[in-house]
Amino acid sequence: MNFGSDNASGVHPRIMAALAAANDGAAASYGRDALTAQAVEAVREMLAAPDAAVFLLGTGTGANALALAQLCPPWGRIFCHRTAHIETSESGAPAWMAGGAQLALVEGDAGRMTAATLAQRIADYPQVDEHDGRNAVVSITNATEWGTVHDPASVAALAGVARDGGMAVHIDGARFANAVAATGAAPADLTQAAGVDALSLGGTKNGCLALEAVVFFHPDRARDFAFRRMRAGHLWSKHRFLAAQMLAWLDGGLWLDLARHANAAAGEIAATLTAAGHTPLVPVEANEVFVRLPVPEIARLRAAGLRAADWPAEGDDAGSATIRLVTSWATTDAEIAALGAAL
Amino acid sequence: MNFGSDNASGVHPRIMAALAAANDGAAASYGRDALTAQAVEAVREMLAAPDAAVFLLGTGTGANALALAQLCPPWGRIFCHRTAHIETSESGAPAWMAGGAQLALVEGDAGRMTAATLAQRIADYPQVDEHDGRNAVVSITNATEWGTVHDPASVAALAGVARDGGMAVHIDGARFANAVAATGAAPADLTQAAGVDALSLGGTKNGCLALEAVVFFHPDRARDFAFRRMRAGHLWSKHRFLAAQMLAWLDGGLWLDLARHANAAAGEIAATLTAAGHTPLVPVEANEVFVRLPVPEIARLRAAGLRAADWPAEGDDAGSATIRLVTSWATTDAEIAALGAAL
Amino acid sequence: MNFGSDNASGVHPRIMAALAAANDGAAASYGRDALTAQAVEAVREMLAAPDAAVFLLGTGTGANALALAQLCPPWGRIFCHRTAHIETSESGAPAWMAGGAQLALVEGDAGRMTAATLAQRIADYPQVDEHDGRNAVVSITNATEWGTVHDPASVAALAGVARDGGMAVHIDGARFANAVAATGAAPADLTQAAGVDALSLGGTKNGCLALEAVVFFHPDRARDFAFRRMRAGHLWSKHRFLAAQMLAWLDGGLWLDLARHANAAAGEIAATLTAAGHTPLVPVEANEVFVRLPVPEIARLRAAGLRAADWPAEGDDAGSATIRLVTSWATTDAEIAALGAAL
Amino acid sequence: MNFGSDNASGVHPRIMAALAAANDGAAASYGRDALTAQAVEAVREMLAAPDAAVFLLGTGTGANALALAQLCPPWGRIFCHRTAHIETSESGAPAWMAGGAQLALVEGDAGRMTAATLAQRIADYPQVDEHDGRNAVVSITNATEWGTVHDPASVAALAGVARDGGMAVHIDGARFANAVAATGAAPADLTQAAGVDALSLGGTKNGCLALEAVVFFHPDRARDFAFRRMRAGHLWSKHRFLAAQMLAWLDGGLWLDLARHANAAAGEIAATLTAAGHTPLVPVEANEVFVRLPVPEIARLRAAGLRAADWPAEGDDAGSATIRLVTSWATTDAEIAALGAAL
Repeated sequence: MNFGSDNASGVHPRIMAALAAANDGAAASYGRDALTAQAVEAVREMLAAPDAAVFLLGTGTGANALALAQLCPPWGRIFCHRTAHIETSESGAPAWMAGGAQLALVEGDAGRMTAATLAQRIADYPQVDEHDGRNAVVSITNATEWGTVHDPASVAALAGVARDGGMAVHIDGARFANAVAATGAAPADLTQAAGVDALSLGGTKNGCLALEAVVFFHPDRARDFAFRRMRAGHLWSKHRFLAAQMLAWLDGGLWLDLARHANAAAGEIAATLTAAGHTPLVPVEANEVFVRLPVPEIARLRAAGLRAADWPAEGDDAGSATIRLVTSWATTDAEIAALGAAL
Repeated sequence: MNFGSDNASGVHPRIMAALAAANDGAAASYGRDALTAQAVEAVREMLAAPDAAVFLLGTGTGANALALAQLCPPWGRIFCHRTAHIETSESGAPAWMAGGAQLALVEGDAGRMTAATLAQRIADYPQVDEHDGRNAVVSITNATEWGTVHDPASVAALAGVARDGGMAVHIDGARFANAVAATGAAPADLTQAAGVDALSLGGTKNGCLALEAVVFFHPDRARDFAFRRMRAGHLWSKHRFLAAQMLAWLDGGLWLDLARHANAAAGEIAATLTAAGHTPLVPVEANEVFVRLPVPEIARLRAAGLRAADWPAEGDDAGSATIRLVTSWATTDAEIAALGAAL
Repeated sequence: MNFGSDNASGVHPRIMAALAAANDGAAASYGRDALTAQAVEAVREMLAAPDAAVFLLGTGTGANALALAQLCPPWGRIFCHRTAHIETSESGAPAWMAGGAQLALVEGDAGRMTAATLAQRIADYPQVDEHDGRNAVVSITNATEWGTVHDPASVAALAGVARDGGMAVHIDGARFANAVAATGAAPADLTQAAGVDALSLGGTKNGCLALEAVVFFHPDRARDFAFRRMRAGHLWSKHRFLAAQMLAWLDGGLWLDLARHANAAAGEIAATLTAAGHTPLVPVEANEVFVRLPVPEIARLRAAGLRAADWPAEGDDAGSATIRLVTSWATTDAEIAALGAAL
Repeated sequence: MNFGSDNASGVHPRIMAALAAANDGAAASYGRDALTAQAVEAVREMLAAPDAAVFLLGTGTGANALALAQLCPPWGRIFCHRTAHIETSESGAPAWMAGGAQLALVEGDAGRMTAATLAQRIADYPQVDEHDGRNAVVSITNATEWGTVHDPASVAALAGVARDGGMAVHIDGARFANAVAATGAAPADLTQAAGVDALSLGGTKNGCLALEAVVFFHPDRARDFAFRRMRAGHLWSKHRFLAAQMLAWLDGGLWLDLARHANAAAGEIAATLTAAGHTPLVPVEANEVFVRLPVPEIARLRAAGLRAADWPAEGDDAGSATIRLVTSWATTDAEIAALGAAL
């Protein structure tokens, strides 16, 4: 019953096998190898974006911070949901890498900004002169930190507000695979077709060892990004081992199979909880379940082997608390059954 | 005959096997797993530094830049050899991560600063008031970018000059294993016992997939370093896969065996070149060979399959050029024999 | 009827005379002159803080950003009211100078944080590990951007919350003189005695040409601050001309006389508006008046010569808008009378 | 005999009078006042650059650092003479403001880079890929830190090398007036016509209270510079007092009269020293004199009232030391005569 984090899961066997297969002889370093060229092409194909600039790296915080630094001037402002990972869990990385940019936090139920809440927040920052900084980027997390998703219409609506304000659009896609699986949308419809400029595409939480990509849909947006990645220490020397992960992850749609598995597992957990009288706090659309339980019940479940993070939420009281359960490609039926039995 | 870079080599089988072995079930993320604790302990043991603070990450530029940012205030100055990697090949990473610090370049033959050249350079920057910045760190590359090494006495002499100037001492040990192998010194004698405060310990060039460590010998020097690593995006979520590399690399002295192999291969190349009338430009002490050859000879060798980097050096002329040959754990006798045959 | 900004006013004659008087012969540069030593002593005396470290400079944004950079690590978070100048009007200066720190915005009526709203916001950022950044500073604007003030008890309450959270306390005192004049409190009781670590003390809005000071009440908090000021370009070479302003401003309580004048003028404007049926939106405690008026009335007043900034506020509608009127040391009875006549 | 620094001199009476004259009633803040518009126009006229973007601020370090930050990407390299002020005396300001850029130091006699020494240094940094950073700016100090000047041909030669390397050209003109006076060249011929992109124009050392300008000759080079100035805290609120200085300084050629006076005074000191058997170390072309004297002689002169900075130089020995004598607009014949008498 380890639902602590999708980062706690391991590497899918096909990806581990790809690493071993890539380890044959010498290969040019720093991304000048053949596998990297293939991986870049594979990402482009998946996103139906033949001109996209694609950069691989190893961590999601690196991907987000570098992508945002590329889109946002030092005096810029990045609008995101108040629970966005870039706000809560990256220790200020995007602000720093962008040279001192600021986050502006947007409200919205269940982890989702809406066009209305976004527009309202932007209105707090009229753009008169240099005192005001620059409204520069809207960053949408998809799937959100609350396990909900934005469908293409939702992304397009947010991107439209961004455009009206002269801003670029970024997707924090640490769980992009889960969003694609949940919406059934084409990846392109969740990104470029919806008006997105840059995507942080996450593989690590979804079966990879350490693999993320930063994608710029318009190559001119990527100008000099190679310098940024380099000087942040995010250009791997043995780059083929990033590329091998990406190729295996995308190959035959493995990435979506894994995400579907994780999403389905979350759905089963939600059903199990609901059946036990504990309806999740927010719709379970991707691979996370948030539920408020009596405190003794949480203690009992943990004693029975449950691993799940405390997730303080509005509405908790002395007797009840909210926990987060995350599923992954590796979640087993047995784990879910054990939860059901323990409840 | 691939002597282009030690980064072109792959991953040693024992390390690849360790990655696969670590991929069993779930493990706590972000370094809270059991393997990480073991890996930290193994690094401490190797360095005979039981109190050292040890942080794992994936790239050498990340390790250097973060270590230096920790030791150097934003208004500080980092003294290093004019051919140091942090000067020539990291696109300004240390300066940036340290908040705008400056490098001060020191002369010295064959990639080595000496106590005299270092002291002379420090004298260029008297410390009178806030106009002057702060002389903050001496960074020693060992093995150097010219394939030479500092023995314990040399490190101690440089560290002594640093101390006299109130400065901290950092080792860029991207090829620390090669330095240990070459000098036969105890790792502790090349670091803490010689007055070193922080070490960037490199595994990637020496048989790992992506593995470096930053070591602070006095734990108080490491205060808040976890924040730095996090916000630079260098904290791996599936951290066990860094730890597994480190454990396998150090296990049974594999790291030194691999470095000895690379150093020996470089020695054989040097002998082969010398026998052919081409004495290397600088002493071959670690795993790099620099040699000036007639331009047509270089072309001929490359046509025969040689991969080696152009390395412009003082003394080159219209008819001759310098190239760099790097060996690794994976260099084969056959490659060296092929070079001999081609010469 | 120029109530556009206290920055639109000129320099008080006694301060201009002091500049001329200081212009006699040569003086040591960069603050090593006799006037600077006197000015530092005068600030210490005014604040009853004989050990304080005092640094003069020319702009309020420079003072705030440098003071906050000194108190806040790059991974830190600065709590301030959502209308604080550092949030709304400094183009991200504090975040940048602090190496990428973030502002966390606190609610509160009339520009004032309360101990409760501050504590509530801090609770949004539990301090578990390096993902969370560091809760580092509480910055209190006094007088606030809404022309209200914090009395010693209010400052002490906020500082207490800060201390409980392990944070330092900063006062943005661009209008500190107005706060002292309004509360009648001793400067020490609004600062050090209330638990404040650093003060940005503003002279420019209150009769000076270009003069601010950064004060650290505990000198160890000021370690290396001279480097920060220098490298931000805020160390004046002809430093005596900062010092001369400070000496004249503090001399004989001129600074408080000027602030009292400005505050009284604001009070008269408030009375005039109230008499005309337009009660100010928030209590008029310092030198700013905010009032909602029918849009045609605003147009009419402007046609009659009124200068006042648009200040969109919650509650405005199609027919009414909020404006801000600011008084200064130079506001005349005639201007106020003209406003009364125009209403 | 105060030859310690031109920063030790005061404000010219006409400039002080202009400050007083500008202090009449209210004026729009932050540079939206009428005087600022006039001052910008006056600078453009002086430089024969009708399209130039002109920004006023208060300090030379601010001007240099902001100008360079505008021209240089964070991963860029700024070439300058090894004695340039931005290297020796600004505590790393340009590197920091440019987001972590690096200085590359160029040799050259008497404080002057030459086209040859510059080209040679640039050759140290081939531009292959993202490891190499970007060769971005050449910064020429004119007059130099050794009191020599670049004439239009010299500036053009250096700028030509910069252009060939794809770099922008910056002039640190803290003593630009002295360079214009010394060369007799038109200001335009020392800047735009010679291929210069940006000029830090210094008034403070030459009779102003606190006044510098940053000039971009092509307005598109100045894009968003207003944000940079603002968030560095270098936008004065009572901006008219910067403008008033500039107008008075340029009015009727005062700036050149003052520079000529200072230069002539330096020439007289050089003659006086030479007559006493102490030939200056480098040609005295602007307002600085460097001379090596027997140590006891220096002590004797200081006892007689001389103020001059120690200036350690190659060639000093146990018995002799080099000092720097700086003249200003305020240097008197009496001071020079006193020096002659004391020698």
